[in-house]
Amino acid sequence: MSSIEEEKKDSAGLIERMAEALELQSEAESGQKEAKLPPMPWCGADIGGTLVKLVYFEPTDIENSNTPTDASVEPGTLEKIQRYLTSTTAYGETGVRDAHLQIENVQVLGHHGTLHFIRFPTYNMSQFLDLVKDKNLSSVSNTLHTTGGGAYKFESDILETVNMQLVKADEFNCLIRGIHFVDRLLPNECYYWNNPDPLDNEASEKVPYDFKNPYPYLVVNVGSGVSMLAVRSHNDFERVTGTSLGGGTFLGLCCLLTGCETFEEALDMASKGDNTRADKLVRDIYGGDYERFGLPGSTIASSFGNMHIKEKREEACKCDLARATLVTITNNIGSIAMMAAMREGIERIVFAGNFLRTNPVAQKTLAYAMEYWTKGTKKALFLQHEGYFGAVGAFLENVGYTDDRSPSPDMERKQTVTKAPVISESSSKEQLTNGSVENHIEASTAEDVSL
Amino acid sequence: MSSIEEEKKDSAGLIERMAEALELQSEAESGQKEAKLPPMPWCGADIGGTLVKLVYFEPTDIENSNTPTDASVEPGTLEKIQRYLTSTTAYGETGVRDAHLQIENVQVLGHHGTLHFIRFPTYNMSQFLDLVKDKNLSSVSNTLHTTGGGAYKFESDILETVNMQLVKADEFNCLIRGIHFVDRLLPNECYYWNNPDPLDNEASEKVPYDFKNPYPYLVVNVGSGVSMLAVRSHNDFERVTGTSLGGGTFLGLCCLLTGCETFEEALDMASKGDNTRADKLVRDIYGGDYERFGLPGSTIASSFGNMHIKEKREEACKCDLARATLVTITNNIGSIAMMAAMREGIERIVFAGNFLRTNPVAQKTLAYAMEYWTKGTKKALFLQHEGYFGAVGAFLENVGYTDDRSPSPDMERKQTVTKAPVISESSSKEQLTNGSVENHIEASTAEDVSL
Repeated sequence: MSSIEEEKKDSAGLIERMAEALELQSEAESGQKEAKLPPMPWCGADIGGTLVKLVYFEPTDIENSNTPTDASVEPGTLEKIQRYLTSTTAYGETGVRDAHLQIENVQVLGHHGTLHFIRFPTYNMSQFLDLVKDKNLSSVSNTLHTTGGGAYKFESDILETVNMQLVKADEFNCLIRGIHFVDRLLPNECYYWNNPDPLDNEASEKVPYDFKNPYPYLVVNVGSGVSMLAVRSHNDFERVTGTSLGGGTFLGLCCLLTGCETFEEALDMASKGDNTRADKLVRDIYGGDYERFGLPGSTIASSFGNMHIKEKREEACKCDLARATLVTITNNIGSIAMMAAMREGIERIVFAGNFLRTNPVAQKTLAYAMEYWTKGTKKALFLQHEGYFGAVGAFLENVGYTDDRSPSPDMERKQTVTKAPVISESSSKEQLTNGSVENHIEASTAEDVSL
Repeated sequence: MSSIEEEKKDSAGLIERMAEALELQSEAESGQKEAKLPPMPWCGADIGGTLVKLVYFEPTDIENSNTPTDASVEPGTLEKIQRYLTSTTAYGETGVRDAHLQIENVQVLGHHGTLHFIRFPTYNMSQFLDLVKDKNLSSVSNTLHTTGGGAYKFESDILETVNMQLVKADEFNCLIRGIHFVDRLLPNECYYWNNPDPLDNEASEKVPYDFKNPYPYLVVNVGSGVSMLAVRSHNDFERVTGTSLGGGTFLGLCCLLTGCETFEEALDMASKGDNTRADKLVRDIYGGDYERFGLPGSTIASSFGNMHIKEKREEACKCDLARATLVTITNNIGSIAMMAAMREGIERIVFAGNFLRTNPVAQKTLAYAMEYWTKGTKKALFLQHEGYFGAVGAFLENVGYTDDRSPSPDMERKQTVTKAPVISESSSKEQLTNGSVENHIEASTAEDVSL
């Protein structure tokens, strides 16, 4: 990653990218609508260990185009489903549409529309299937493009209950493709925290990070567990390490330690707590700083290391325990990610996954730790669409999107539209693996984006 | 580390070492007793975040030699203290002597005697100081050789309460010197687990590991927190990484989750529990194995990852939570250690520290994971004296032991006695840094050792 100064300079590039995105939109009007299109609805699902994430494309120009649904579908069914999905932000007891993340004016297979992002807990799968039945969703499509472990676990259940066939895609492929696709759509998808301070909300601010030259980077996907992938090009990536101490550990421990029931409650408690009442700090052991190693007294020597002492347990409230859990899990992930990046010779670390959802404390803890460990030379990068990239990847499978090219060189973004690829030395490798790209998806303007 | 077959072959070397140790004993009779000796008692303390560890030398030949105490000490005081320390295995409410670890027939500064190993919780420091006062310990010595963070934290307290001056030594220096010293004394100090299976006590057995050629190795010291040191020679080592998720985290979380009060209780519960009721396994997400990555369904995907579900929480008992805590912390340490070793190009990983004390479940979990991750090519190594090496190092400071040479080449062990160093190519570096060695400490026989 470049230094702060370089990034500031780079952020000027964002304006250029926005201008290009505008250009893309106008050029993208070229009709691709005649091509053979998959039946609507177009969507993708990532069935994870804790959450099911859904990405759904709502065409906003459907009256003006052929409705590309199966001929056997009762007219109006698709519209009803669409109205249901987009008219509310809550489905059943636990389904949620993240309206603040929706991406408007996206062009997919010649249609303009909006990408919606929906999630519900995996343990509520049966309620979700009831909803699918109730809303007659399976009458419009008998296949669902999926990724994540649940695509295997629930395959036969879903087939039996709602007669829907799952088309399964690899979760890491989907993750990486999803990241690149959304980053290409939205110039401010990737960001970092300036002056990250987990204890001072005023001091920190989000700053867009120009991710146009991303390789190599490490993506740290924090779901129930954590996977870390070294990404060297759009199609050259591997899982280099991981840890079972992830978002599921944070939530599970918080539920046990505080009696909370949801991720939101756990985060709310953590935001009010003080981990130093539970943790043993360097100053608790040394009486002050540990000078030989330049460790300030406030460094955590042992997470929860004071909680074997009865009096200290009595002093710590539930919010303190939630905060200690959050800080423990977050620092552990950050530390393993740093080691993995160093071993792989990688500078950029991008954190994704739903553990970071509405979780500025974790983000700033990671960002602060990263700056501290690297003496300010490296920053933790984050993505606005946090845990939805796998689902985006499954959606891309659904619409037959095969443009796996790097989102980085501006030239390539232009090629998507102009259909006049210029194979430069640096992009020739990517080009060789790509086929018919241009007739599928083009970018929306940055200004349309509702972030 | 060599393969299993090579280690079996190597273990033949142990017999050779025992024979040499016997030889050392007889040769060590050469009198060094006239040298200026430090006042007794000879001991060392490691004041850690959770436990204070003490090493104490009991001379068994004191009637036959000059009592090397300060002339101002009332006659008989030292003997009384000695009788108190060695006649019981419990001091006050929480002090414990680990009689099974004592090392008999050690020769120190010309005296034969026994090394004793004593510990008490750091939070009971004030009770310990009362005991020191009560037993008039400070009348025989007004200095105490110490290491660990508490040597800083409690320095002024100890001076004020019992008029004892602390001589402080670096904790990592003490740790490494302690390991090398004890390994030189005891041929079976270092061991590994054959067929490690945390779920089947019958299947596993301890096997001595010949540590005579240890460099380079990674020592993973699991106390309240965890430090990992790359050791490349007796005086070339550095802390390469660490984690705040250590023994203090295990105990603190267990106290919070189960209501237990002590490490022993926590371990007892963990030994009876089943972590898979709390953890989310690969099969909980995938419905079976994750074939693409060759991950069996029993792999933990998310530690405590089922505990956000009310019904699952109700199914998990306290022992299950203790076991999950143990497995979480242990696997995390093992995984970070593996990464650190790979980054440093190190094959041998030695686990020390009091988290491993009487903790075969953690040891076998580490051993099993190490074999699994390395496809059987690497093994986790352990040390009988677990968390006492820092205290041994402080003790060595007390008696002015300056032999920091490698414990590895047999030749060097002989040199200690014969005073006729043969500087070979491989050992010349160590030789250059060593001075007068032979007049201080020689090894006991392996047969005398009470392990």
